[in-house]
Amino acid sequence: MQICLIGAGNLASQLAPALASKGHCFLQVFSRTEDSAQRLASVLQCESVVRPELIRTDADLYICALKDDALSQVLSRIKFGKGLVVHTAGSLPMNLLAEYTPNHGVFYPLQSFSKQRQVDFSEVPFFIEAAFSESFETLRKLASCLSDKIIPADSEQRKQLHLSAVFANNFVNYLYSIAEDLVNEKGIDFKYLLPLINETARKVQTLTPVQAQTGPAVRFDRAVMDSHLELLNDHPDWKLLYEKMSEGIHERAKSK
Amino acid sequence: MQICLIGAGNLASQLAPALASKGHCFLQVFSRTEDSAQRLASVLQCESVVRPELIRTDADLYICALKDDALSQVLSRIKFGKGLVVHTAGSLPMNLLAEYTPNHGVFYPLQSFSKQRQVDFSEVPFFIEAAFSESFETLRKLASCLSDKIIPADSEQRKQLHLSAVFANNFVNYLYSIAEDLVNEKGIDFKYLLPLINETARKVQTLTPVQAQTGPAVRFDRAVMDSHLELLNDHPDWKLLYEKMSEGIHERAKSK
Repeated sequence: MQICLIGAGNLASQLAPALASKGHCFLQVFSRTEDSAQRLASVLQCESVVRPELIRTDADLYICALKDDALSQVLSRIKFGKGLVVHTAGSLPMNLLAEYTPNHGVFYPLQSFSKQRQVDFSEVPFFIEAAFSESFETLRKLASCLSDKIIPADSEQRKQLHLSAVFANNFVNYLYSIAEDLVNEKGIDFKYLLPLINETARKVQTLTPVQAQTGPAVRFDRAVMDSHLELLNDHPDWKLLYEKMSEGIHERAKSK
Repeated sequence: MQICLIGAGNLASQLAPALASKGHCFLQVFSRTEDSAQRLASVLQCESVVRPELIRTDADLYICALKDDALSQVLSRIKFGKGLVVHTAGSLPMNLLAEYTPNHGVFYPLQSFSKQRQVDFSEVPFFIEAAFSESFETLRKLASCLSDKIIPADSEQRKQLHLSAVFANNFVNYLYSIAEDLVNEKGIDFKYLLPLINETARKVQTLTPVQAQTGPAVRFDRAVMDSHLELLNDHPDWKLLYEKMSEGIHERAKSK
C-alpha cells in the first residue's frame, strides 16, 4: 500500500515505522513543523512536506494523525484523490471526514503513545470504521499486519472508549503523581511504590476490577479513612478525591 | 527462627509460607476463624489455635497480621514471653504494641495481597521499625531472606506510605472499574483496555508520572473535555471526578 502520512506526532512516529517494517510504502510525511516532518521522513525514507497543498493525490491511503483541533484546518487544504482517508482519533466522529472525500474511515489504535517509549503494536487493539465495506476490509488487512486485535467500532463506541481511556490511563497516571508527592513529602523514594503499581495493573488481567478491589474504603473503615483525611489537610483537592473515591468504592462493594 | 503467626488473612497466608520456604519454623497459627487457622497451619505444618490464650510464650518472633480493628482485642489476651512482637500494618503506629511488650516492632511489606494471586516477595519493599536495635537487626535479616529492598521507616512515614498506596492501588483500581463500566455500556469488552492499563503502569517505571502524563487535560482541551463530560451526564459522581482530576492534571502541567 502507498501511504501519505499527515502528522508526525507521537502516534504517527510510532505507527508509520511499524507499518513500514511490514512492507508498506510511505510516499510522503506532512507536518507543519519542518523538523518533525524531516525527521520522520528520513526514518521512512520518503519525502517530507510542510504545505498541505503539496500532498500527492495518488496515494492509496492517507493516515491523518493530527491533533484534534488541527485536523479540519489542514484537511481543507488537501486535494485527495480516490485514496482512502482515515483519521486516528478516539474522540472525533468518522463523518467529520465526509466533507473532504466519500472514501473515508477511522483507524484507532487504543494505546498511550509517547516519544520516549517504543510501543509493541502486537498487543494494541485497533478499532476501525469505514464508509465503504471495501475500505473497511482495507483497514482490517492493514491492522492485521500489526495486531490480531481488530474490532469494528462506530463513532459513538470510539468516543466512549476514548473517555474510558482517560480514566484508565490519564487519571490513573495522575493518581500515581499524587502518590509520588505524598511519599516524597516524607523523604521516601517513589520507586518503592512501583511493585505495587505493577501488581495493581497485573491483577485486573485475571480478576475483574471489582474482585480486585481492596483497601479501607471497601468496608468503609472510618478510623483508617479519618486518619488518612487528616494527613491530607494541606491538600484539599486530594482530600476531596479521597472522599469521593472512597464513597464510590464502598457503594460498589455493597452492591456486589 | 521460631515464629508464632497471629492472623491467617491475605497477608499472613502469603508471607508465612514464603518465610517457611526460607527455613523459618512456624510453631503456631492463630486465627479466630477455625477454618482459616487450620488451613494455613496445615500448609506450615504446625499447630492451629483459635484462642489467644493458647499462644505459646517461647517463640522468638510473633507476627501479628490481623485487621487493624481486631489487633488490640486479640493482643490483650496474649501473654508474650521475651520474643519480638511485630505487626504488619501500614496505618498503625509501632507504639501501639508497647503496652503488651517492650520488645516490639513493625514489619510492613508494601504490596497488595489477595488470596487469588501469588505475590513474588523478591520485588516487595519491606519497611521496618523496632524499639531495640537488636530487634531491628532481626527484622532486617528476616526481610533479607525474601527481598533486597529493606527500608527503615518510622510510624509517620509508614502511615504516609499507606496513604499513597491507597491512591496508587485502591483508587487506581477504582478508576479501572469505572473504565470497565463505561466500555461495557457500549458493548465493548474490558479486555481491550488491558494493554493500555499495562502500558500506563510500565511508563512510570522509567518516566516520572509528570513526564508520563498525557491526555486532553494536560492542555485543557475544552472541546474534548466538554464532550466527555456530556457522556457522563448519567454519572454525576464520575463527572465530578473527571472535572477535579482534569483540573489537577492541568495545574500540574502548567507548573512543570
